[in-house]
Amino acid sequence: MSLISDLQWRYATKKMNGTKVTQEKIDAILDAIQLSPSSFGLQPYTVLVIEDAATKAKLLPATYNQSQITDCSHLLVFASWTTITPANVETFIAEVATKRGMPLEALNDYKNYILSSESHLSEEQKAIWNSKQVYIALGIALAAAAEARVDATPMEGFNPAQYNEILGLTEQGLHASVVLPLGYRDEQDWLAGLAKVRRDKNLLFKNI
Amino acid sequence: MSLISDLQWRYATKKMNGTKVTQEKIDAILDAIQLSPSSFGLQPYTVLVIEDAATKAKLLPATYNQSQITDCSHLLVFASWTTITPANVETFIAEVATKRGMPLEALNDYKNYILSSESHLSEEQKAIWNSKQVYIALGIALAAAAEARVDATPMEGFNPAQYNEILGLTEQGLHASVVLPLGYRDEQDWLAGLAKVRRDKNLLFKNI
Repeated sequence: MSLISDLQWRYATKKMNGTKVTQEKIDAILDAIQLSPSSFGLQPYTVLVIEDAATKAKLLPATYNQSQITDCSHLLVFASWTTITPANVETFIAEVATKRGMPLEALNDYKNYILSSESHLSEEQKAIWNSKQVYIALGIALAAAAEARVDATPMEGFNPAQYNEILGLTEQGLHASVVLPLGYRDEQDWLAGLAKVRRDKNLLFKNI
Repeated sequence: MSLISDLQWRYATKKMNGTKVTQEKIDAILDAIQLSPSSFGLQPYTVLVIEDAATKAKLLPATYNQSQITDCSHLLVFASWTTITPANVETFIAEVATKRGMPLEALNDYKNYILSSESHLSEEQKAIWNSKQVYIALGIALAAAAEARVDATPMEGFNPAQYNEILGLTEQGLHASVVLPLGYRDEQDWLAGLAKVRRDKNLLFKNI
């Protein structure tokens, strides 16, 4: 299984060396993110793909000065929607109708099912639900980066309020959920040579 | 990129045909889950691997009678920890020390950093944070299943309280977060032949 060897190769790189990742590899990672499943298929997030050095420099202090932010090639900021509106659902259903060549009316039951499900959630629950969908895409992105032999560091250690302000996310109805620098490991990275630590299968899994 | 074609092949199978998945393929999917990254590496979840027909039958009504639950080969229930205790962190740090051949004292700073990070979270925030880590593993599991050409249906449409009770999760400090039947698509599945719908890249991504 090549995914297994890809996952064994990867690690959360602490120090990157500034080398650029080719557009072809970036595109493959973004293609995988686009193909990620999500509940109902809503994909309630936007992914910022940041190459601009000035923007990265602004984000560095908002990430407790962790150097991957500026030494990466591309910085992905997964920004989840802060809510889900009926208009979002209408847009999604219209997209399904177009892509599947179906009349809108044929999707009425499905639309009402989604609207009904969402109506039971508080605004806070919607935001949490959206951010969970982001983490599916994050998992897929990590697999895609590893397959392309691009290093990637999933990071929750940043100040979301500062990210939202610097990137103008709040006014777009977005919230910075998780960050993923893409680049190449520096040979001096202290973590590079260490054994991977994972919970034993007899603790992680329970057969019934 | 083989991951891209794997993701294009997969879809959220609505009707499975009861065919068994080989243990070799199940093991490959579980290996990928085990290798999934998580914040700090804590892996704050247990994955139940359910083959037992009687247990699946009990879970069917708790899943609004969606037939994948009983027509799948193996049902994975991702159960996240309801909290994170200092003892969980101690266990993790001891594991890191053993696997990396380091003295425990060398990991004191890291341990205190994790404990301090966790101490800022409410119990509810810890549970949410744990469930997000589950979704990374879910994304990786979906990639692994697709690579093995095993169908997999990520499902949030179930009653977590009923799952917790049927599977005895609450008393183990666990909460059913998301469910993933593994098996093979029935040729009659209405969704099998339909075009995949994903948000356009110009909406999903923003280059900076």
